[in-house]
Amino acid sequence: MNKQQRYNPDWQPKDAGEEFAVKVVKGEVYKSSNAQRYIPKNEESVDEIVSGIRAKNRNILAKAITTIESSSEKHRAKARAILESVLNNPGESIRIGITGMPGAGKSTLIESLGLKLIQNGHRIAVLTIDPSSSISKGSILGDKTRMEKLSREENAFIRPSPSSGTLGGVARKTRETITLCEAAGFDVIIIETVGVGQSEITVRSMVDFFLLVLIPGAGDELQGIKKGVVELADAIAINKADGENEKKANIAKADYSNALHYLMPATKGWETKVSTTSAIYETGIEELWNVILEFERLTKDTGVFYHRRKQQAVDWMNRMVEDVLKESFFANKSVKDLLPILKNQIQEGKILPTVAVEKLMEVYRK
Amino acid sequence: MNKQQRYNPDWQPKDAGEEFAVKVVKGEVYKSSNAQRYIPKNEESVDEIVSGIRAKNRNILAKAITTIESSSEKHRAKARAILESVLNNPGESIRIGITGMPGAGKSTLIESLGLKLIQNGHRIAVLTIDPSSSISKGSILGDKTRMEKLSREENAFIRPSPSSGTLGGVARKTRETITLCEAAGFDVIIIETVGVGQSEITVRSMVDFFLLVLIPGAGDELQGIKKGVVELADAIAINKADGENEKKANIAKADYSNALHYLMPATKGWETKVSTTSAIYETGIEELWNVILEFERLTKDTGVFYHRRKQQAVDWMNRMVEDVLKESFFANKSVKDLLPILKNQIQEGKILPTVAVEKLMEVYRK
Repeated sequence: MNKQQRYNPDWQPKDAGEEFAVKVVKGEVYKSSNAQRYIPKNEESVDEIVSGIRAKNRNILAKAITTIESSSEKHRAKARAILESVLNNPGESIRIGITGMPGAGKSTLIESLGLKLIQNGHRIAVLTIDPSSSISKGSILGDKTRMEKLSREENAFIRPSPSSGTLGGVARKTRETITLCEAAGFDVIIIETVGVGQSEITVRSMVDFFLLVLIPGAGDELQGIKKGVVELADAIAINKADGENEKKANIAKADYSNALHYLMPATKGWETKVSTTSAIYETGIEELWNVILEFERLTKDTGVFYHRRKQQAVDWMNRMVEDVLKESFFANKSVKDLLPILKNQIQEGKILPTVAVEKLMEVYRK
Repeated sequence: MNKQQRYNPDWQPKDAGEEFAVKVVKGEVYKSSNAQRYIPKNEESVDEIVSGIRAKNRNILAKAITTIESSSEKHRAKARAILESVLNNPGESIRIGITGMPGAGKSTLIESLGLKLIQNGHRIAVLTIDPSSSISKGSILGDKTRMEKLSREENAFIRPSPSSGTLGGVARKTRETITLCEAAGFDVIIIETVGVGQSEITVRSMVDFFLLVLIPGAGDELQGIKKGVVELADAIAINKADGENEKKANIAKADYSNALHYLMPATKGWETKVSTTSAIYETGIEELWNVILEFERLTKDTGVFYHRRKQQAVDWMNRMVEDVLKESFFANKSVKDLLPILKNQIQEGKILPTVAVEKLMEVYRK
């Protein structure tokens, strides 16, 4: 029991910043400097959290995000208060969405880009949305250890977004996390996702710029990419364009540039760019950032940037209204009982969907 | 006042099939054989309508559709009864969606195809969904006079679908109209629309086969086509491939075939086909029908056909639930009052969408 003290209920953190570690041995709690679990200290007040965020304190930021992600009633009220406070003086940033299949090298690319930007005085927040973890219970994106160098930087903040619950739920928490990161002075916010479910559309709906990361394939590179994802992108990076792959990458670049002629651009007035990158050799990273800067300048000049943000916020509200209405409908006991029966009858062609809906509404409104 | 009699309230149709015409002169109603308006005769009962439909009576079918389209409470109950009856013995058909810009020659193509199919013993129903008419109050698709020859055929039935009201409303009525047409022995149902709003997605969600009609352009044919529409199509017809256009049409065909390699097919196991047609010279029409037959055979063999229909019916129910919930939410007086204020605050960045939604829900649930 060296370095350890038996638990004493009078323990209190000395100041708001202190945390202490404990170890549980046979049901008894001991204070410990090596223990893996922490006793949560008295929670900071809303004011303490807001000033911590303003002071760019990453620990406080992390706690604020945890509060927002919590589903407890007490935390929801607190989360709302925090968000209302930070909105009085929101931060400025460019929000960048990045998607691509597992193995496309997104994390390495983000790390290269992030380290470069930090050198130039930026502060980078990386939020990952991993819809696979709620489906398969295993995570495709893994955790922050994938961006080891970046995670050691003072001016970087890496955080996975919880993917449990409804799509609206994911979006809500990630969007609010963006707001908190901006208030904490992060001026480049990267939202990373993989091509599963509706995640690209969700991410596109919360970013200014959307990047699709691909690797050079065998001539039909768009195969396997979900319908419409290319049309969401403001830029495509053909990654791993190094060594033997370099030639293939250039062919892929030409193919995509050609295919893009047939598609509407994702952003009004902007022509979707295709570039090659090697995250490992760190080539093409500077060029990619220049594309993003050019995009920002152009869309701010034309007003498309600001218009999209306003539109995204209103759309978000509308989608959340839908989600909340649907959630409460499908959680209704009578609806739950009747639904499978009607679904079956519909599939058998025994009842028209219109009539089924009328019946569901009858029981719901009772 | 030759051939005319002053209105007499005792007038009754001699039998269920009789209608008589009237003319209004200075506010007085006269019986007339040339008049343009009809006094509605006593309405048929549900049984009369259902047996009329089964007997392939187009007048009765038209009346049944009018009943379904009516928003009066009395007609809704009747519509439901009619639909429930016909579902006991539904018809079989292939449902074909056709979209394309105004001027692409959809109507002429449908007429050519329809006349050909009637010769081969088919019965064709053409339903048009024209979302433009509710937006601009002018119709892009025009009326049935566009398909003059086809409309004179005993085995053809042409009907515009009303586009007023919500998207769900359009879809609901058109879908139920399909059911009625099938019960009336129409075995090829064509749903025609133009590329406005969400109409292609709506139509795709109610058909087995979806055809995009294009005209050869200047090399970048997909420009102007809405995002993702090409990816909804099971076939693309490059129409007006005649005279000077023939060469251009063949180039367009090659371009599209190439572009399609980069897209996921709209139907599992089916490779989207591109063909050239000339509705005027009636070339390529037979080939197009063969593509549809091949599609039907293949998807019925693999079960994709039946699976899609079941899925469409369930999706339809789910979408209608959403529509009904949203309609009742946004029709709420308190929500209506609060919404514009909150929308404005959201756009100004003064309030988060999440908080706005909480406020809206509070007033709605009161």
